[in-house]
Amino acid sequence: MAPKKMAPVEEVLQSDVKLNLSKVVAPKLTGWQLNLFVGIQDFPLLGGLIKSNLMRLNNIPQYLREIIISDTPMYQPEYPTNQAPEAAVKHLSEESDPTERVAFALECLPETTSHFQNKSLPFLYWNIRDYVEAYTTGRVTPTQVAERIIAAVEEAKKKSPSLIYFISLLPEDVLKQAAASTERYKDGKMLSVLDGVPLAVKDDMDCLPYPSTAGTKWLPQVREVKEDAVAVARLRSCGMIVIGKAVMHELGMGTTGNNPYHGTARNPHDLQRYTGGSSSGPGAIVSSGLCPVALGTDVGGSIRIPSALCGNIGLKPTFGRITNEGLFCVGWSMESCGPITATTEDALLVYAAMLGTHPADKLYSRPLPPCVPELNTGSQATLGSLKLGKYSDWFNSTFDKEVAEICNKSLELLMQEFGTETKEITLPELDELRIGHLTTVGSEYAAGLTGYDKKLLQKLSLETRGTLGLFNEFTASDFFAAKKIRRRAMYFHMHAFGTVDVIVTPTTGTTAPVIPPAALSVGESDLTTTGNLMRFIQAPNFLGLPAISVPVGHDSKGLPVGLQLIGRPWEEATLLRVAAALEELCIPLRKRPSTFYNILE
Amino acid sequence: MAPKKMAPVEEVLQSDVKLNLSKVVAPKLTGWQLNLFVGIQDFPLLGGLIKSNLMRLNNIPQYLREIIISDTPMYQPEYPTNQAPEAAVKHLSEESDPTERVAFALECLPETTSHFQNKSLPFLYWNIRDYVEAYTTGRVTPTQVAERIIAAVEEAKKKSPSLIYFISLLPEDVLKQAAASTERYKDGKMLSVLDGVPLAVKDDMDCLPYPSTAGTKWLPQVREVKEDAVAVARLRSCGMIVIGKAVMHELGMGTTGNNPYHGTARNPHDLQRYTGGSSSGPGAIVSSGLCPVALGTDVGGSIRIPSALCGNIGLKPTFGRITNEGLFCVGWSMESCGPITATTEDALLVYAAMLGTHPADKLYSRPLPPCVPELNTGSQATLGSLKLGKYSDWFNSTFDKEVAEICNKSLELLMQEFGTETKEITLPELDELRIGHLTTVGSEYAAGLTGYDKKLLQKLSLETRGTLGLFNEFTASDFFAAKKIRRRAMYFHMHAFGTVDVIVTPTTGTTAPVIPPAALSVGESDLTTTGNLMRFIQAPNFLGLPAISVPVGHDSKGLPVGLQLIGRPWEEATLLRVAAALEELCIPLRKRPSTFYNILE
Repeated sequence: MAPKKMAPVEEVLQSDVKLNLSKVVAPKLTGWQLNLFVGIQDFPLLGGLIKSNLMRLNNIPQYLREIIISDTPMYQPEYPTNQAPEAAVKHLSEESDPTERVAFALECLPETTSHFQNKSLPFLYWNIRDYVEAYTTGRVTPTQVAERIIAAVEEAKKKSPSLIYFISLLPEDVLKQAAASTERYKDGKMLSVLDGVPLAVKDDMDCLPYPSTAGTKWLPQVREVKEDAVAVARLRSCGMIVIGKAVMHELGMGTTGNNPYHGTARNPHDLQRYTGGSSSGPGAIVSSGLCPVALGTDVGGSIRIPSALCGNIGLKPTFGRITNEGLFCVGWSMESCGPITATTEDALLVYAAMLGTHPADKLYSRPLPPCVPELNTGSQATLGSLKLGKYSDWFNSTFDKEVAEICNKSLELLMQEFGTETKEITLPELDELRIGHLTTVGSEYAAGLTGYDKKLLQKLSLETRGTLGLFNEFTASDFFAAKKIRRRAMYFHMHAFGTVDVIVTPTTGTTAPVIPPAALSVGESDLTTTGNLMRFIQAPNFLGLPAISVPVGHDSKGLPVGLQLIGRPWEEATLLRVAAALEELCIPLRKRPSTFYNILE
Repeated sequence: MAPKKMAPVEEVLQSDVKLNLSKVVAPKLTGWQLNLFVGIQDFPLLGGLIKSNLMRLNNIPQYLREIIISDTPMYQPEYPTNQAPEAAVKHLSEESDPTERVAFALECLPETTSHFQNKSLPFLYWNIRDYVEAYTTGRVTPTQVAERIIAAVEEAKKKSPSLIYFISLLPEDVLKQAAASTERYKDGKMLSVLDGVPLAVKDDMDCLPYPSTAGTKWLPQVREVKEDAVAVARLRSCGMIVIGKAVMHELGMGTTGNNPYHGTARNPHDLQRYTGGSSSGPGAIVSSGLCPVALGTDVGGSIRIPSALCGNIGLKPTFGRITNEGLFCVGWSMESCGPITATTEDALLVYAAMLGTHPADKLYSRPLPPCVPELNTGSQATLGSLKLGKYSDWFNSTFDKEVAEICNKSLELLMQEFGTETKEITLPELDELRIGHLTTVGSEYAAGLTGYDKKLLQKLSLETRGTLGLFNEFTASDFFAAKKIRRRAMYFHMHAFGTVDVIVTPTTGTTAPVIPPAALSVGESDLTTTGNLMRFIQAPNFLGLPAISVPVGHDSKGLPVGLQLIGRPWEEATLLRVAAALEELCIPLRKRPSTFYNILE
């Protein structure tokens, strides 16, 4: 009769922690089977039985309902207030405007000759400074760039298979912005180094004149877009050209990018494979060179997964670092928006321009002042003083063994070049963390869709309806249990950050999965693949920590592999520092995708 | 197909707000009917049907599930940070210890001759200063007082009807404390003005050497008490004598005080009636004169309701003002502990000694420095500058019309004596607030009892099981909806506090209800009475605001009536100021209960 109780966190650390990550158990479904499954879920008795069985197979009642957790619930990330200052970084003034910030960040970059001037530089992608050089030297105008992108997007749709990048793109709106930028370049009145740089925006971030579908068929019917999301407005004030609203996994509720309504984005490295999601369009757009920058949102890896699978840089900032104002945001306590770029320096510039809170934000941890890394002062030579934390049992537990091998190799390169030490750490209760994250996503999504007409919700894809069916099962006490687990997980991670500066993991446990042909029109539900893709993803969302995915090589199928760096709260700059070094070291191991648009030449 | 949306809060205020409080709809059950009802609740289909029907009858799905609420969830009370300082109060140093604080508070009291010296003073109850005078002048010793209380409690049990005040009382422990206090008085080494003053502690606050049953049969089997609750420890450090653990409504989950296991406390003003709850024992103990001070906890009126029904002062401080560390606290975001006393000056002294946070507290609003009212400087003469806010339609909507009349009369007295103006206010969405509070209580209780063995939960009373059955129905998105309603309600209340200093209401909508004889052994479920008792109760819990119940007269049945004062966040001192004035004005309208122990004479 004695109840099961979770041990006090302090005692857990002293015991011998074993990796306890269990596999996600669920049938892999597409076509008529998926249809049947989702239909049955709504049956009063049988549906309930199936759902509660699925929950038990995945340890949900065991972790949330059948154990006493005495910790105080943590509703949003709460951080220690005594954090030491970051090294080798420069503080951005909190009062500065986006153009000042991006200028400040630019000064922190090393001076490099552009790819135009020095053809011997290792080159995969045009970066922001290449665009600016092309514009200022008159090689090309923003208007010409806009025209090329519009034409490429149109042409791609007609290919076989059809390549979908955007849900909406209005050529006249793009050309109007481009003309204004072209004019500014002519007059020498550029707004910032971002002026004229093409930007794709995920379709759950508000952006005029477009509606936000968030990947659904119907959201614009009940939700009007009145102004740009604040982060988008900041980039616009720097002169960026919004090309359109990028395609995404419906409501962000999936990690493949499958979207039976608007089309499924295809991986530029292998068109028969997924980009990963939910920021699938942004992943494909950057990877294929269509735009150097795209914005994504990340509640459960939605920036990092497509970045890893497509070979991009993807930065998920600290929770609250960039305001979510103007997002169709249902992941209140876990969502961050951030840049997906081809290079680290572009991520740095765009991050600097878009960061900052908004009066409407309700945060429980006050942000530390934003920093950018000093990449121009030789401080990269001191990278060896950083300690990288690696939980080897976890790190090496990728479904594709090659992924861990390639990630390990990149760390060895870093060690050889900079002497950066990798220290062994353990992180207790990762399985509980996973379930805590799932419960939080589930609860917040279910709550975010409350009040909408059932007829509209019936128009969601089968996959989304199946997932929502499970999400609606979470009770208020499940939510509390998850919030208690969050406090425990925060303790364990902050404990690890007492001895290391960055936690390293593979970004995903597998490279890009194949798109089953039947899944294109009906969608699919494959929680095992989701589990593999999300194996290392949850802590940055659940705990609000900053994380970045860096492309570090390709597997034997030629598919990109990403390494994930997880930082202390508010330490995006340290992540960008390590990412810049890793990116440079790994460029020789990478290749451009077969689908590539050389927009500047 | 257009969904229902709640209007932005700013727009609500400009419209013509109408009182929208609906009645609680539920069958009144006791005996075999209650037994049957609780049994049926557990049936898979029928039980679910009954529960969802009850929820719909009480507007729960309408307010939580069938409307879009766009406000950001507020998990704990969050207050504006620009609050102006209170007038006519003195700041307590945040570093001071409880004995220093109580000494500081003592200096703020008017010098009065004691009831011993001046028999012509209006006298209902011995207060703390009377105890100290009796001890210092040698009229009586703490040991003699302890012996008298122990004897009275023993004797009361044998009466017909049996009078139950405590769940546990160990005479040897009481006498040991009393002997130590007696010694201190002999040596002139008193710890504070609270030294030797008898204290009853509600049985959900930890207090050695007792277990905490929280009114259940079984809690001590699975939860060990290791030390005093912090608030209790603070009072002990001032020399108070803990008499025992006062009886309460099981788990605090009811407002009558009915407890079929440990016995139902009876109202000293009419032994056939309830004390109100859940701090039923504390209410009866203070009202009957057994102890001048008792501690209660308040998640949904549990301090204020028994205070009103028994004719006591009951102070529920601001959420977080007094730490909950060491309480069997399941109302994380709503619970406060506080004093129940016979007089305002005693509430002030005890409040001053027990206040303060604890390192383990997780608060989202930083407490303002604690204050006490300057009752000794003639500042009471400036009470006329305070504005009292009254929402007349609500105020006058008591089930017992007399209650509103008596409360109105007390405000007229205050107006006549001090010129204190009562200003009309409106508070929109009170019905939504009520449901938001209920959902929060329900969610937090269900979560607080998660993980306990089902066999233990089966030992709960029928009433508690019935209530828990409903509480377990709340989904994670219901919880979110309630938290969004909390942000709206906070806005409306802060808006009211822009023009008034204190909101006044009757404490309860009815005076003490009759105990149905069948309910003594089986319990009862009477949500209509609960609704009447809680009609004015929720905002201080849901929004964490301080509130005090002041006895202002008796109805035609001779039952006490309480007026509730609700203050701005952290402004307990202003409430105590108004309460002191009201108490003095209303003493002629009050009477001592028929069951009264004259402990000092």
